[in-house]
Amino acid sequence: MSEPAQFALPHSPFRPTAPTFTPVRWESDAIVAIDQRRLPAELVELRLATVDQVVDAIRSLAVRGAPVIGIVAGYALALGLRAANPVTVDDAAGELKRLEEVIGNARPTAVNLRGALADVRRAALSSGAASVDELRESVLRAAIALHAADRAASAAIGKNGRQLLGERRRILTHCNTGRLATAGDGTALAVIYALAADGSAPHVLATESRPLLQGARLTTWELESAGIDVRLIVDAAAGAAMAESLVEAVIVGCDRVAANGDTANKIGTYQLAILARHHAIPFYVAGPLSSFDPATPDGASIEIEQRPADEVRRVGGTATAPPDVEAWNPAFDVTPAELIDAFITEAGILRPPYAATIRSALDAISSASTIGVSR
Amino acid sequence: MSEPAQFALPHSPFRPTAPTFTPVRWESDAIVAIDQRRLPAELVELRLATVDQVVDAIRSLAVRGAPVIGIVAGYALALGLRAANPVTVDDAAGELKRLEEVIGNARPTAVNLRGALADVRRAALSSGAASVDELRESVLRAAIALHAADRAASAAIGKNGRQLLGERRRILTHCNTGRLATAGDGTALAVIYALAADGSAPHVLATESRPLLQGARLTTWELESAGIDVRLIVDAAAGAAMAESLVEAVIVGCDRVAANGDTANKIGTYQLAILARHHAIPFYVAGPLSSFDPATPDGASIEIEQRPADEVRRVGGTATAPPDVEAWNPAFDVTPAELIDAFITEAGILRPPYAATIRSALDAISSASTIGVSR
Repeated sequence: MSEPAQFALPHSPFRPTAPTFTPVRWESDAIVAIDQRRLPAELVELRLATVDQVVDAIRSLAVRGAPVIGIVAGYALALGLRAANPVTVDDAAGELKRLEEVIGNARPTAVNLRGALADVRRAALSSGAASVDELRESVLRAAIALHAADRAASAAIGKNGRQLLGERRRILTHCNTGRLATAGDGTALAVIYALAADGSAPHVLATESRPLLQGARLTTWELESAGIDVRLIVDAAAGAAMAESLVEAVIVGCDRVAANGDTANKIGTYQLAILARHHAIPFYVAGPLSSFDPATPDGASIEIEQRPADEVRRVGGTATAPPDVEAWNPAFDVTPAELIDAFITEAGILRPPYAATIRSALDAISSASTIGVSR
Repeated sequence: MSEPAQFALPHSPFRPTAPTFTPVRWESDAIVAIDQRRLPAELVELRLATVDQVVDAIRSLAVRGAPVIGIVAGYALALGLRAANPVTVDDAAGELKRLEEVIGNARPTAVNLRGALADVRRAALSSGAASVDELRESVLRAAIALHAADRAASAAIGKNGRQLLGERRRILTHCNTGRLATAGDGTALAVIYALAADGSAPHVLATESRPLLQGARLTTWELESAGIDVRLIVDAAAGAAMAESLVEAVIVGCDRVAANGDTANKIGTYQLAILARHHAIPFYVAGPLSSFDPATPDGASIEIEQRPADEVRRVGGTATAPPDVEAWNPAFDVTPAELIDAFITEAGILRPPYAATIRSALDAISSASTIGVSR
């Protein structure tokens, strides 16, 4: 099996300060990923050597961020195929199909997970591998190519978003969409890193993003460590911050964009879009085209994951509500396309009418895909 | 000094189940109040025997809820006057003025605090007390009368709000505005108790109300213990809940209502009002007329208390963000009058134009005030 050095990833040009961590990497016999549940208290890596470990890590949100989940899933196919040790190429192809199901069911909403699995499997199968060993090698190469493509997408999203912002410097963002969530500088946060890289000194308001506090725990940590000005607010303070003129643009990421532009993202995104519209502040969704799903016609077709009540009833070791009170805890919500002023993608800025501009962007990328997959 | 039994409070008729606690009571030589920081884990009472202890309890939010803060402040005048032990009635009057300043500075936003202090002081001074002992007795009687008036206001707010709701049963509320926050069934929650009392089975969505989680810790505990159906959501899920048709009305309390109807209340109220308007859901503010301040012309004139960053960076014993990250942590925000569909008060439902209807309600109550004070 090839060494990872052979597949060195292209380096992003947008780095105000170098990141001091790598959210996911391949180490020949395992995936090594940061355990994002333990940040900011500790920077600890998990070694994921089996498909079960990968699925557990995704379900428990140790591994999170739609692009990172997709990257990990690609490598997990390589892990699973080695463990299954099939005898024939046909057996191996069947095993890949089974693994795609198992891993793809870890979380339902983000399309990157299923998309990455399908892309890597198809790319490997279309490589013309003559032996099981060659097929394994092709799976790993495809996973590494997908990893590299995500880093390249981050760089292009940062560049495109930075141009879109013009003179706007006060950015409100939600959840974590940065160097911890992607292979590069991120999606929404890539735009902020790009501002910082050209000396434009962004001022970021980060929502804490309850219940799992990805904004408080991850975004503030990540931006602080990069020397970027960031202030933390509770999710309930977003409207007041807009009324106080602390926000010139809202930029969020996405877990799945439907064919019509309706967008599933972290719970709270929808209300930020309403608040931005009320205050005449532009609301942008940043994401790679791998988060766009032409097979999902609209937001109503997106399955929204309901998470356990204890995520809302507790914070870390602290009970914050009676232990038996019911909670309504959707992990995501859907923002209708009409509340989104633009999508920031690696292929450029997409404007309404989204059905046409999204279709056109996806058509262009599928014919130019680095891992030769049409979706 | 008279025993508290002489001043038994009128009992509210709206009690689906009897409350199992009293947020504040007078015990001849001290104020006894629930330490609301320790709920829902423990129901513990604090004994406040000095003005310093009262100020600390208010500042630290051990004692909270605009009406309860007002009630405690009234009793604190009695505590302070006894401790000062003045020789003449004039000295006592001067001491009351000084105490009004000291206690009134504990928290800046809720008008009930300063209003209660002014009401109790003026009522006592106008009692014609001929000795310091008589003046002390008058202060205590005025504080007890204010306590009773707040309970009566709760009952009337519940009744008036219940009529306003008609067939609406799915209520979203914010923070805690119930039996823990007032002398009776509350303000916004009094409406919910009134629905429950007539068998109308309300379904309540309680926002957790970060950073201090009064919704998660107090509202769910209080409604559960009364047998009322309640579900907890993160603040970021309010918009999604509205989109999912889980909300037929939003009812919140208030810390200060300006003469034009602009309303300061717990951070997050403003954005709930915007979200309600976006979804064509009625947005009601419930509160006693003691929360209305004719001396504040509009929302821009309301001082908004900024609270420490650690409230946002921590939850209980758990750090949720890097310890040095900056936070923007206003305790309240201001909802413009035009986003408020009605005020639910003890004097009836107030509708726009608020400048006129608020003025008229305040004029009516000042001529009928139980403690003989015009404000």
